[in-house]
Amino acid sequence: MVVILKRNTSKEQTQEIIHWLKELGNIEVNPIYGEHTTILGLVGDTSALDINRVNSNPHIENVKRIQEPYKRANRKFHPLDTVVEVSGRKFGGTELQVIAGPCSVETEEQIIEVAQKVKESGATLLRGGAFKPRTSPYSFQGLGEDGLTLLLKAKKATGMPIVTEIMNINHLPLFEDVDVIQVGARNMQNFEMLKELGKIDKPILLKRGLANTIEEFLMSAEYIMSGGNEKVILCERGIRTFETQTRNTLDISAVPLLKNLSHLPVIVDPSHASGLPWLVEPLSKAAIAAGADGVMIEVHNNPPKALSDGAQSLRPSEFDVIMKKLEKLAEFEGKTIG
Amino acid sequence: MVVILKRNTSKEQTQEIIHWLKELGNIEVNPIYGEHTTILGLVGDTSALDINRVNSNPHIENVKRIQEPYKRANRKFHPLDTVVEVSGRKFGGTELQVIAGPCSVETEEQIIEVAQKVKESGATLLRGGAFKPRTSPYSFQGLGEDGLTLLLKAKKATGMPIVTEIMNINHLPLFEDVDVIQVGARNMQNFEMLKELGKIDKPILLKRGLANTIEEFLMSAEYIMSGGNEKVILCERGIRTFETQTRNTLDISAVPLLKNLSHLPVIVDPSHASGLPWLVEPLSKAAIAAGADGVMIEVHNNPPKALSDGAQSLRPSEFDVIMKKLEKLAEFEGKTIG
Amino acid sequence: MVVILKRNTSKEQTQEIIHWLKELGNIEVNPIYGEHTTILGLVGDTSALDINRVNSNPHIENVKRIQEPYKRANRKFHPLDTVVEVSGRKFGGTELQVIAGPCSVETEEQIIEVAQKVKESGATLLRGGAFKPRTSPYSFQGLGEDGLTLLLKAKKATGMPIVTEIMNINHLPLFEDVDVIQVGARNMQNFEMLKELGKIDKPILLKRGLANTIEEFLMSAEYIMSGGNEKVILCERGIRTFETQTRNTLDISAVPLLKNLSHLPVIVDPSHASGLPWLVEPLSKAAIAAGADGVMIEVHNNPPKALSDGAQSLRPSEFDVIMKKLEKLAEFEGKTIG
Amino acid sequence: MVVILKRNTSKEQTQEIIHWLKELGNIEVNPIYGEHTTILGLVGDTSALDINRVNSNPHIENVKRIQEPYKRANRKFHPLDTVVEVSGRKFGGTELQVIAGPCSVETEEQIIEVAQKVKESGATLLRGGAFKPRTSPYSFQGLGEDGLTLLLKAKKATGMPIVTEIMNINHLPLFEDVDVIQVGARNMQNFEMLKELGKIDKPILLKRGLANTIEEFLMSAEYIMSGGNEKVILCERGIRTFETQTRNTLDISAVPLLKNLSHLPVIVDPSHASGLPWLVEPLSKAAIAAGADGVMIEVHNNPPKALSDGAQSLRPSEFDVIMKKLEKLAEFEGKTIG
Repeated sequence: MVVILKRNTSKEQTQEIIHWLKELGNIEVNPIYGEHTTILGLVGDTSALDINRVNSNPHIENVKRIQEPYKRANRKFHPLDTVVEVSGRKFGGTELQVIAGPCSVETEEQIIEVAQKVKESGATLLRGGAFKPRTSPYSFQGLGEDGLTLLLKAKKATGMPIVTEIMNINHLPLFEDVDVIQVGARNMQNFEMLKELGKIDKPILLKRGLANTIEEFLMSAEYIMSGGNEKVILCERGIRTFETQTRNTLDISAVPLLKNLSHLPVIVDPSHASGLPWLVEPLSKAAIAAGADGVMIEVHNNPPKALSDGAQSLRPSEFDVIMKKLEKLAEFEGKTIG
Repeated sequence: MVVILKRNTSKEQTQEIIHWLKELGNIEVNPIYGEHTTILGLVGDTSALDINRVNSNPHIENVKRIQEPYKRANRKFHPLDTVVEVSGRKFGGTELQVIAGPCSVETEEQIIEVAQKVKESGATLLRGGAFKPRTSPYSFQGLGEDGLTLLLKAKKATGMPIVTEIMNINHLPLFEDVDVIQVGARNMQNFEMLKELGKIDKPILLKRGLANTIEEFLMSAEYIMSGGNEKVILCERGIRTFETQTRNTLDISAVPLLKNLSHLPVIVDPSHASGLPWLVEPLSKAAIAAGADGVMIEVHNNPPKALSDGAQSLRPSEFDVIMKKLEKLAEFEGKTIG
Repeated sequence: MVVILKRNTSKEQTQEIIHWLKELGNIEVNPIYGEHTTILGLVGDTSALDINRVNSNPHIENVKRIQEPYKRANRKFHPLDTVVEVSGRKFGGTELQVIAGPCSVETEEQIIEVAQKVKESGATLLRGGAFKPRTSPYSFQGLGEDGLTLLLKAKKATGMPIVTEIMNINHLPLFEDVDVIQVGARNMQNFEMLKELGKIDKPILLKRGLANTIEEFLMSAEYIMSGGNEKVILCERGIRTFETQTRNTLDISAVPLLKNLSHLPVIVDPSHASGLPWLVEPLSKAAIAAGADGVMIEVHNNPPKALSDGAQSLRPSEFDVIMKKLEKLAEFEGKTIG
Repeated sequence: MVVILKRNTSKEQTQEIIHWLKELGNIEVNPIYGEHTTILGLVGDTSALDINRVNSNPHIENVKRIQEPYKRANRKFHPLDTVVEVSGRKFGGTELQVIAGPCSVETEEQIIEVAQKVKESGATLLRGGAFKPRTSPYSFQGLGEDGLTLLLKAKKATGMPIVTEIMNINHLPLFEDVDVIQVGARNMQNFEMLKELGKIDKPILLKRGLANTIEEFLMSAEYIMSGGNEKVILCERGIRTFETQTRNTLDISAVPLLKNLSHLPVIVDPSHASGLPWLVEPLSKAAIAAGADGVMIEVHNNPPKALSDGAQSLRPSEFDVIMKKLEKLAEFEGKTIG
């Protein structure tokens, strides 16, 4: 951490600040006296140091963090890739996972039919929403517990592990047979939920918030990991920008950046990122080419009748065409799907 | 709602789509046939119509909403200002409220001292964080339930109503004696929490999410109101942009826009918007000049020692200077503080 | 400037880097050796040091600038406010200027009528576009040189100084009798134009680019000032964000920030920032309350017939109502308009 | 175009507005009368209709454009891909172009050495900056005309066509032997420059502005094309967002979107988008996988000594490794480089 003092700070005040900083944490403080500016270099473990608290000193002009504030999610301290295994499917390493399924679980036939079809096409996990975050209180909110029951039936019928979103930590007992619990973008900084998910032993698919930086994203992973649960899968799903042609802007650079800063597996959700089904193919290919460990794609057996987000869903036949291309690209990249 | 069909849509397909749309909701559908494009004008109550579902039809190029999707929060249906009363203090109308206090409650002396000082300076409600949303799991997370107890002591000592943030809906029973429950920016779209807060009879201070549009903000208010609780106070606290000189960018236009689109009271939090204590004065003045019903200001008795966010806090003496100016500006605007 | 070295940098490599940095500029380099990280503190005049060039060294992880890269625009080196005078009207100090007029000059009657009306209402300078930047090549591009001639007639008829935009530096000779030359948002980083405007002796109204930071804004002022022309008036006119209710998002914090970082006068353009005429009043008031030295308001005698941007224009009668309020607010702030 | 009238608009006023709209352009106007809202559907060629002018009518609440405002750049009117040929290299179709070279031309040896090396590695065009847009007036501004001379020497020495940026339209005569003229991001809306470039018969590489929408990008292409020059190559180079890990955020979705909306070739600049040389490989691969017609990569023979933007440059040896991978990916995609 580097602390820049204000212009008129006296030598005595500087000494006081050095003393105060040393008390705040177990750190060394090295001053550099310039003509106009004094810089303090803080050396040691500054991750517990509160940058806002340091900044509050009236003699301090600016504080710049130099080390990443995350530890357990940090590749510097865990150079090897973390591989998160879900019933034999590996996130990370040389396997690619394709999670597919409808935005919302609607009926037993629907979820089972979609599950069977995406499995035939080569998808490795089944997704489906039981509890749905909806901007409007008047929109369909998902089938809730009944939706989970239907998902589990589809799991039994196909043998595919299931991924579904939790919206209320009180629902956790209902997720016992769920294979991967998803934290949606809007809950990425629901810290109370993250803390609870840190206490369980189940993979968490953590989606990036639509206005959250990569550092904040990794800090949210850190919340889960600091509780003891290190099975975190990161998911880039688009950020909010001024561009309106796509629902969000897929931050493709986030894939290699996250893989570089962290050892956790990284997947991409092109369906939510773009909101346009015809963009799923090029964006999935871009994700794999950029190094992603998987993709998450919405597929519905009858998109125009979908009760939520049908607009971004593919038909099973369209998904099948894309899967063939992704399999070839995976092979080109020296990876295998599944 | 206006639906634009794709270029090559046949008359038969158009008839089918019209039929399908009529089934989706209790609406009339009027087609306009252009040379290249057919437009369908949907008339009636389209608020329950899911724009994504409509969009999912493969013959539909685009759907544009014309009416606001919120009703209870909509000024068109409630032309008069809603005034939310908190122990005699009125949000809305000709009164301005100034909510002041520390970011976090730390000790009994601290919160009582700050409460007394801001009351002397003219603040009308006391704020203080017991449960704190922190980006890092290693930062101070607030005193929790003990913090609430201390806040209630400060309320008793000064008679000021208190405002504090809820982070976990399971904590609701602890908030019984809290006067205004705050929903933080990161929870603005924690829909499960909003639904629960819609069932109680207590004012809710709803902060705008840092990447949420004004429409989404009003939809979150709608979540609370649709549950029956119409005592919602909106708070603009800055949005996330590319500019880094301020922590967030205060969207001052949101004040007159929200007052125009909705009948709910609107306040501004210049402390969190800017992250810089010296900007609190100009931004508070701007807020009042733009028509805000109040401001929310962080004050700490000893900012450099504050356990969280001291950087953006003012000292009581600085707050006192600002209050004198805000009182004069309020008078100039034909309003009174408190 | 602070330079952070990569983890595995050896002592010898560190010495080489220190040597290399000293050669790049007339600076001192002070190393701080931490357990994992070495930090170099660069002391001296680093404003000519190219941060990207420093960053290119393969052993360097990160470079952080500590001093502002602008000098002539920097308040640290010019503590007193710069007052830019235009035919007796002062930008900066205790005067507020209100620049009013139509988006485009259209006819002689139009511009003279608007000029007379806004003058009667108290406006102090006349604006009007002769060369118009338009997103579409098919939109009205302004009357060009004829527009300038009409503006000068309006100047003669009313005695008001005129402000108009330059879009092509080759047109400069045509601007001889123009009082203030405006550089539009889209040309804020047209560095070739800025250099030429630095060579003349005429006030420049520099608008902030819609995606430019405050630092970049001041660097563009520095371009003009480094050429010798120190008569720069800064104009905040909204930045591009995700919010779509307003055309741009007025960054009200930019007003006190710019006044703090720089000694140059700062005005606000609420018409372009919002694109909504009914927001001009609250935003103008907010600007003045936040410390702006003036506002720039679009007024058209017949907005629905305006050939460009009529949507954001006020009628003269509406402008008159606003002026009365702004005059009172100016008085409240201890300032006078004009 | 769809026009939504305000709630209280009478039938007479509606008739007047319909009449007024018909006068504005050669269009049909179809009203739809709802319970609360009247919608007018405008049918015909609305591209010349000024949306702001329509919006300015006091009875109009909102105007929504339905057809794209660009024609010559619009794929709807030119279904086949445009192929821009530069000395036998084709942008568009089944060829991929790799433009490589240093940010700035510095010396004869430098540019010739880099040119020879990137040619050996398989690059198909040479880039190099002679006139450099720099945020600071104190940074190296490029060698100017001398830089162009050196570039032409490198062209002669290697036979590679050259791409270089124009910053001042008055310099156009100097660009006679330049093969592709680049318009930089900061000049994307320098409409005066675009108009002049529309009059010549030479390929233009148009970079997307850092805060410009895809529609604005295509409108700038339209400026050039409406002047008669249809040889426009679009270049996505990152947009400005809140994320700070990368210099800009590469909008990978822009590639398939632009290819879908327009018939023009689209390339990607991963060097400027990210500002990080190690991201060039994954982002180039993502670009090709998403359907780009080429990439533009910065290569410098000695990055730490580069006078500008060395930070984002690759060494020739690093570029060589990447080229081998891109060639294989091109082959996988059924394309060839060069």
